[in-house]
Amino acid sequence: MQEHQQQRKSEIHSYVTDSGDKFIEEFRIFLKQPSVSAQNRGVADCAKLLRDMMTNVGIETKIVPTKGHPIVYGEIRSKDKGAKTLLVYDHYDVQPPEPVEKWLCDPFEAKVDGNRIYARGSSDSKGNVFAYIKAVEALKKTTGDVPINFKFIWEGEEEIGSEHLAPFLEDNREMLASDDVHMCDGRPWELCYGSKGLLYVELRVKGSDHDQHSGKAGPIVANPAWQLVWLLNSLKGPDGRVKLDGFYDDILPLTKEEIEALKSIPFNETELKEDLGLKDLPTGKTPEDLFRAQLLEPTFNIAGFNSGYTGPGSKTVLPGEAMCKIDMRLVANQNPDVLYKNLLSYLKRGGMDYVQVKRYWGGAPYKTPLDASIGRVISEAHKEVYGQPPAIIPSSWGSIPFYVWAKILNLRPVMIGISTGYVNAHAPNEWNTIDGVLTGIEFFAMIANKYAHSS
Amino acid sequence: MQEHQQQRKSEIHSYVTDSGDKFIEEFRIFLKQPSVSAQNRGVADCAKLLRDMMTNVGIETKIVPTKGHPIVYGEIRSKDKGAKTLLVYDHYDVQPPEPVEKWLCDPFEAKVDGNRIYARGSSDSKGNVFAYIKAVEALKKTTGDVPINFKFIWEGEEEIGSEHLAPFLEDNREMLASDDVHMCDGRPWELCYGSKGLLYVELRVKGSDHDQHSGKAGPIVANPAWQLVWLLNSLKGPDGRVKLDGFYDDILPLTKEEIEALKSIPFNETELKEDLGLKDLPTGKTPEDLFRAQLLEPTFNIAGFNSGYTGPGSKTVLPGEAMCKIDMRLVANQNPDVLYKNLLSYLKRGGMDYVQVKRYWGGAPYKTPLDASIGRVISEAHKEVYGQPPAIIPSSWGSIPFYVWAKILNLRPVMIGISTGYVNAHAPNEWNTIDGVLTGIEFFAMIANKYAHSS
Repeated sequence: MQEHQQQRKSEIHSYVTDSGDKFIEEFRIFLKQPSVSAQNRGVADCAKLLRDMMTNVGIETKIVPTKGHPIVYGEIRSKDKGAKTLLVYDHYDVQPPEPVEKWLCDPFEAKVDGNRIYARGSSDSKGNVFAYIKAVEALKKTTGDVPINFKFIWEGEEEIGSEHLAPFLEDNREMLASDDVHMCDGRPWELCYGSKGLLYVELRVKGSDHDQHSGKAGPIVANPAWQLVWLLNSLKGPDGRVKLDGFYDDILPLTKEEIEALKSIPFNETELKEDLGLKDLPTGKTPEDLFRAQLLEPTFNIAGFNSGYTGPGSKTVLPGEAMCKIDMRLVANQNPDVLYKNLLSYLKRGGMDYVQVKRYWGGAPYKTPLDASIGRVISEAHKEVYGQPPAIIPSSWGSIPFYVWAKILNLRPVMIGISTGYVNAHAPNEWNTIDGVLTGIEFFAMIANKYAHSS
Repeated sequence: MQEHQQQRKSEIHSYVTDSGDKFIEEFRIFLKQPSVSAQNRGVADCAKLLRDMMTNVGIETKIVPTKGHPIVYGEIRSKDKGAKTLLVYDHYDVQPPEPVEKWLCDPFEAKVDGNRIYARGSSDSKGNVFAYIKAVEALKKTTGDVPINFKFIWEGEEEIGSEHLAPFLEDNREMLASDDVHMCDGRPWELCYGSKGLLYVELRVKGSDHDQHSGKAGPIVANPAWQLVWLLNSLKGPDGRVKLDGFYDDILPLTKEEIEALKSIPFNETELKEDLGLKDLPTGKTPEDLFRAQLLEPTFNIAGFNSGYTGPGSKTVLPGEAMCKIDMRLVANQNPDVLYKNLLSYLKRGGMDYVQVKRYWGGAPYKTPLDASIGRVISEAHKEVYGQPPAIIPSSWGSIPFYVWAKILNLRPVMIGISTGYVNAHAPNEWNTIDGVLTGIEFFAMIANKYAHSS
């Protein structure tokens, strides 16, 4: 059996190596197709392109419309009737590329520079989607079969909160029935068991229907920008403590296993600083403190603020309107619905009915127990391909919809991807590496081979 | 003498009436030339156009370069060697037209709709500049002379704080020697004896060199938008009281004459509400309270705030930068230099060295005593042309450079203009009226005739 697996590994490796140039050109075609969900830019066309890529390797694929952007769904069955079924999930949508002027090349040019490919979505998360499809191709081309059944869900709204993923799961429980679920987002050296949730709101204060002369209106008319500043300050003061009612009430303490796992995560201070653009770490904090905060502390973040005149020079206006966007990254078991209601009551109670609140979709946080069996299979496959097992991450710093798999399909999701260059993921000059994508194809193929023979 | 003046008045009226169509077409040419000082858009070309308009009516005119936008300066002398000299001041620059999409027509199209002309600068303040030049034309065409000597200063930087006006006055004291100064900005029914000052600062907090993923960076990296929110809140809280050190210390109490004048100002609540876009006045305030505040209370206004992602959708970033613009409208005798220093010390004292402060030019506040003789002359001319004297305003709600005339030329400035439609002056759809501009020409000619015979 061991020998058989070594042979599979070797065949896959040869196939991937021989197909390297072809794969990169195919990958670039995928990257050149924009799929900016927040701006509805190219998403439908990208779904079609993805469907064709899947069909071409023998995955039976359909585009499933939702009330938002479509889900691309595909199945391929093993000739082995007793084979296990692995559900694979990731997203084909990408973040907006703005500010475009800060990119070194066009965000959808997919420029190759040495071992790097620059493009919006190259790491987050088209590299992962592409590698899984090519893993199927490699498995089939080398053995004429796939060792397990695959069900692929590629959604088109992950970057805007995955609003229609849960309804899709609810409506298709039978079709989606599987033994395990692998969320293939993220990096190859971190196997992640949970995720933060997200509550995203836009607050808007409207005064008059246009900006006014600040001399004439200033002493009389309420200033929407000030109103928003005071509201924000009342929700989180300079000490960083969030004052929204009940914000900290439902947070779960860490388990012993989680605390142990955190200790064993290799931590690279230089990389953290480079990644976050920091010269120094905040005073009084160890790198471990910061890493733990990154994974396990909730945030209350101003993502955007706009009011009045922001161009060059000194225009003296009293703004007609002020708007801010806030994202709260929630940890298990904070409840976004409860916190949203608490925000509305706070505004009402404080006589701030003039604040308009728009809620964007966001999910709940969730953590899979660390003893889930799919995790063990993936760790072993990882060790085979990369030479060492991945770090065990109790929860990601992202807001990935872990909770829906547990709640709706009763599966215990884990997540690991192959994007070596998981840098600038939501920023200008996002990149991935050619090596990383090719090795990733082998990793995903190896997971299938290991999973086929796991207990 | 009285009869003589009546004849002059009648001749002027006939000339203006007969020339109405010609005047409006000339006015439109002036309005079509942009002169946006904050954006350095068309200012130099507008100076040339203005010079030619003046030369054409016999005013000896030159364009005087400054370190910023040029001043257009002109003189015309009466044949009467003993004639008095009136210095006339206003500005040919205009506010930026943005947001352009809220205009009903192009801001520099000068669209005529019935009695209205829509254009940026139509009221503030090209209507006034134009009317004075045409008053000279009317005086000369009807009598072959002007009854007094005129010196005209049209500056190109009023809307950005008049930075280079004071140096111009300092460098040209002899050339500018005059008996009185008439600032011809504003509306025909208000004769104004003073003005607020302006301290305008831009505050900027820079974090990393691009926006970051709010999940990854949120729990670790300081958020520039939050830092600016907290700083602003510490400078002015929800009670509206400005906490900047010494902000209220130097404010002068009102004189008895000023209090009397305030009582006599006709006050139109409907107009105030319409002008400010208010459905209701703020609770607990009488219209008189508000009007008094408008004229005589200092402000600390957020004119603009920008940070992070402000487009459509729910992009989850931690902003790399946050910027706000603040204008403080100061009243006599608040000192903008002192307050600016106090702001810098406050930031330093509070360990907020990371806040970058850019100061834009702004002047000090000033009030002319209400017994200035030029004020009496103008009131009489006003009564002749409009049928009633103007209201006496101890101080304007604008930030007009009154203080420079007193400080440098030892003159006591008063201000009154002719822009009937002084509405939307710093907002979209600024307009003026054809009637108002034509009657304004008569008013300015009448001031000259009255002033020639005043004691």
